[in-house]
Amino acid sequence: MKKFINLSAFRAILKTNNIDAYILPSTDPHLGEYFPDHWSIIPWLTGFTGSSATFFITDSYAGLWTDSRYFIQAEEQLKSSGFVLINSVYPGLTDFMEWLHENVKPESKIGFNGRTFSISIMRKIEKALKEKNVSFNIECDLISEIWTERPLMPLSIAFDHLVEFCGKGREEKINEVRELMKRQSTDYHLLTALDDIMWLLNIRGSDVKFSPLVTCFVLIGQEQILLFVDERQIPFRLAMEFDKLNIVMLPYEETEGMLSTLSYRKSILITPATTSVSLYNSIRKRTKIIEDISIPTRLKAIKNKVEINNIWKIMVKDGVALTKFFYWFEKSHGSLVVSELTISEKLNQLRAEQENYLGPSFSTIAAWNEHGASPHYLPTPESDSVIGAMGILLIDSGGQYLDGTTDITRTIAVGQPTEQQKRDFTNVLKGTINLAFAKFPHGTKGSQLDILARKALWEQGLNYGHGTGHGVGFCLNVHEGPQNIGPGSGSGSSTVIERGMLLSDEPAVYREGEYGIRIENLLLCVEDEETEFGQFLKFDTVSLCNIDKSLIDINLLNQNEIQRLNSYHALVFEKLSPHLTEDEQRWLKTKTGTLSSI
Amino acid sequence: MKKFINLSAFRAILKTNNIDAYILPSTDPHLGEYFPDHWSIIPWLTGFTGSSATFFITDSYAGLWTDSRYFIQAEEQLKSSGFVLINSVYPGLTDFMEWLHENVKPESKIGFNGRTFSISIMRKIEKALKEKNVSFNIECDLISEIWTERPLMPLSIAFDHLVEFCGKGREEKINEVRELMKRQSTDYHLLTALDDIMWLLNIRGSDVKFSPLVTCFVLIGQEQILLFVDERQIPFRLAMEFDKLNIVMLPYEETEGMLSTLSYRKSILITPATTSVSLYNSIRKRTKIIEDISIPTRLKAIKNKVEINNIWKIMVKDGVALTKFFYWFEKSHGSLVVSELTISEKLNQLRAEQENYLGPSFSTIAAWNEHGASPHYLPTPESDSVIGAMGILLIDSGGQYLDGTTDITRTIAVGQPTEQQKRDFTNVLKGTINLAFAKFPHGTKGSQLDILARKALWEQGLNYGHGTGHGVGFCLNVHEGPQNIGPGSGSGSSTVIERGMLLSDEPAVYREGEYGIRIENLLLCVEDEETEFGQFLKFDTVSLCNIDKSLIDINLLNQNEIQRLNSYHALVFEKLSPHLTEDEQRWLKTKTGTLSSI
Repeated sequence: MKKFINLSAFRAILKTNNIDAYILPSTDPHLGEYFPDHWSIIPWLTGFTGSSATFFITDSYAGLWTDSRYFIQAEEQLKSSGFVLINSVYPGLTDFMEWLHENVKPESKIGFNGRTFSISIMRKIEKALKEKNVSFNIECDLISEIWTERPLMPLSIAFDHLVEFCGKGREEKINEVRELMKRQSTDYHLLTALDDIMWLLNIRGSDVKFSPLVTCFVLIGQEQILLFVDERQIPFRLAMEFDKLNIVMLPYEETEGMLSTLSYRKSILITPATTSVSLYNSIRKRTKIIEDISIPTRLKAIKNKVEINNIWKIMVKDGVALTKFFYWFEKSHGSLVVSELTISEKLNQLRAEQENYLGPSFSTIAAWNEHGASPHYLPTPESDSVIGAMGILLIDSGGQYLDGTTDITRTIAVGQPTEQQKRDFTNVLKGTINLAFAKFPHGTKGSQLDILARKALWEQGLNYGHGTGHGVGFCLNVHEGPQNIGPGSGSGSSTVIERGMLLSDEPAVYREGEYGIRIENLLLCVEDEETEFGQFLKFDTVSLCNIDKSLIDINLLNQNEIQRLNSYHALVFEKLSPHLTEDEQRWLKTKTGTLSSI
Repeated sequence: MKKFINLSAFRAILKTNNIDAYILPSTDPHLGEYFPDHWSIIPWLTGFTGSSATFFITDSYAGLWTDSRYFIQAEEQLKSSGFVLINSVYPGLTDFMEWLHENVKPESKIGFNGRTFSISIMRKIEKALKEKNVSFNIECDLISEIWTERPLMPLSIAFDHLVEFCGKGREEKINEVRELMKRQSTDYHLLTALDDIMWLLNIRGSDVKFSPLVTCFVLIGQEQILLFVDERQIPFRLAMEFDKLNIVMLPYEETEGMLSTLSYRKSILITPATTSVSLYNSIRKRTKIIEDISIPTRLKAIKNKVEINNIWKIMVKDGVALTKFFYWFEKSHGSLVVSELTISEKLNQLRAEQENYLGPSFSTIAAWNEHGASPHYLPTPESDSVIGAMGILLIDSGGQYLDGTTDITRTIAVGQPTEQQKRDFTNVLKGTINLAFAKFPHGTKGSQLDILARKALWEQGLNYGHGTGHGVGFCLNVHEGPQNIGPGSGSGSSTVIERGMLLSDEPAVYREGEYGIRIENLLLCVEDEETEFGQFLKFDTVSLCNIDKSLIDINLLNQNEIQRLNSYHALVFEKLSPHLTEDEQRWLKTKTGTLSSI
């Protein structure tokens, strides 16, 4: 895939198109995190493979903007690409819009493809450049012209996601959504995010790596649902089911056209963050547009009882795969040559032995020593490291199962860890534990809880540059809002944490050039007591896998923390051991044995 | 003052003015928290004396909206006023705008006085009523017509606030503001908040109770400053000083007129939250309006070195006054009859013995037993309670000194406290301590720290309905942003906490019908270490007064907390004892003696 474009050739195309500057984000017409290779333009253009970036080019400048997770990786991958990492040239800058504001020349003609720009980003750009008197060409798809060997759009076959997995039939979901549409006084609801649509229609597919999605749009009315999709992707039996519910299939390409025919007098609910400029502009000017988070996004964030039961089940399966992996690793390391890529392969293979497994929920991060300092490092054949005799190994992986989605990080020591490594690990562990055992009144937001995972690190002058937790989908996106746990700059952190929400808990320490340590479990929000001061909530830790005791400095843990870790380990053994061989059981017994302070 | 208006008479006036509904907030043309009695309309109309309320009246409805701090008080004071407490009729509702949205009749003609409505509130109302097709009459001052014995506007004489107190001359401040105006590309800056103007011009006055303010507006340009004020309030020597800096005085009433003459081509920086609709509308339509927090608000939130030195000095004075008070209280209670109002009186008298004292910084809250459950209870002759033999006494008070502003709450037990009272007190104390000892990286916002003060309470199923901490001015408003520490619904909680900011730390428990417990200290943000992960900050607790050990259940404190309390008490004794009599010293020695776990 890595075929750097010739920058001067690209600039010639800018000139032909009468464009001074071109902006391109790493996304697709559904504005998702994962998308078909057809839309993997930035890796093809620049060599940078991180999941989040924006590219900006003029006749004299070629830069790439990404977030702090990818700084080290981007520096490495952009070498000799002709692109500079904007962030590293302006280290104090935290907002790309600020950079645009400072650096775009007045009167510029700016081009971009309105199909892959959300209306909310477009507005931010307009605001940032308000005083520059720039003009926009929003129908500027320069890529199709030049990317001759561009991958075709995928055509995976959709399948029915059964109620035994997801707990609620599509008819019931549709009724719920329509009920809430009435409350918001909206006639139509446009769904653009693929996870929203998969959830609503109880279908899954494999158009996209890591997320079981089918590429389509949906327009919901009170009587009818229009599904814009390539008909070949919908098998006959599903099409029949859809027909019963008055779900009408139309070609994918007709979405804009259909939106432009909506009556002047009607109102439509759209989500600015996932609605492209092109779709937005196709809605007639006088149609009343209501902007809000989508109704399916809100509904599916609250897992139902069937889903919660299934989540507990997949956590056992996932934990069994991980335990088998770590057992194998400990036995094999030394006799076999194990590299980061082997680890990734082996983990996938062990998960694949579990029932209802679909594939990894994201690209496995297996990071040895200094690779771990790059929070989202992905091993490639070029970077692949062999696991040596001494060091820190960070493994962040997850699976898609028909009965849910997992995401878990464990960091282990190979050989004898240093005192600093133990201190760092233990302070990260304190964070994981303290967030997991939070008790809080209903109404609390993720931004309020974030510090629980950071406090022990801050006390040592440590910190990590990413959020603490993201929402997790159900056999859908591994990063799925609206909820999250973070310092509060994004909107997700101001979402109230509700009973039934699933969130990750992943504090970390990254020491550049040395190693990275992260411990991640998934938390399910459940009810605690109700008092005169309100309904209180807490979390159940649902991820099941032992935590490396050889990296714990027990003197840094208080009694509470020790006891919590011990009871977690007891639970891990209890749940996983029935599914392990005798050797693995013995091994896990030791790994989960009681830790006691001296 | 309490002279309820006849509701039917008021409704007749609505009719005469062709108004269906009238809205009136508790504020003045400067949109401040404290204001001259001239603007105390809501107490005069309804009897409710809380500092924050909005009143809404139609021909069939008369309601008052306030916030949770005042629910109990409002229920009590509104009895037989004809007004209902809106909040208690709609208990789930947290936003007045939502209530308006639900309850205002379509096509209503709504009247209010644009001089006492901020443009930001006006916009919220417009948004809430967008679909109702209502019309607004924004020049509707119904009150002047009917309030015959309305207090006149005050005319206190301004005085020079010396650089030995405030650390920076007015010329330097003006230059700093102009520099920042250039960076924001603004030609003019309108100052409407009185604390902003007092800070900029280094003047103080006594137009307003509790805050040393002079009523005026200021318009800053790069060459000239226009000060809209009653000239009689500016003594000759100050006027001469102003003249040297090209500060030109104009009549207060001419502010709107002058704004309407600004050139079309100029830009003006205003703060929507403190700029009235009338002032806003007087700016010509084509003048470019830049909306942001005011520059003085940002600058004065960071206390300079002289101010910080002075803050430490006044904390000694304030602590001495408080210690003398509590000593007196313990000796007198039993022999003298002590009531809530006596306490308020006595405290003011003891503070007045200290150098540079101007008066209380807010109305003293002295609350015995169930009165304390109302977070902002103010004793009145009607409610005044005599302090009995057994119970909980909460005292929240503060002083204005030329060298700073204080705000401190202590809760003490009279007689033997119950186990529940000790548990509640100790959990509140844990909150006060844990926030005070936070260490956090630069960039952290108040919303992230809030939970540190609540965590111990949440673990017991307890909570409090107000923020944890507010910013504090310097010989200015006791509540002064932009910073605060809270759950994050307001904008203040998303302000980054900077070195030099002064904030309160006041967790609490309120048990309706029983008692209230609150412990409040002021915290000054100072630098901690700088590591590869950034600059870290921490707080110094600057308030100095012992904490009632008889209310502490030591089994609920960990070693860290005990040690922190002990070192705080050692500091209190060290700083205050030189200024006490021998008897008082002996008393304080016992009160601050080391607490040790068994």
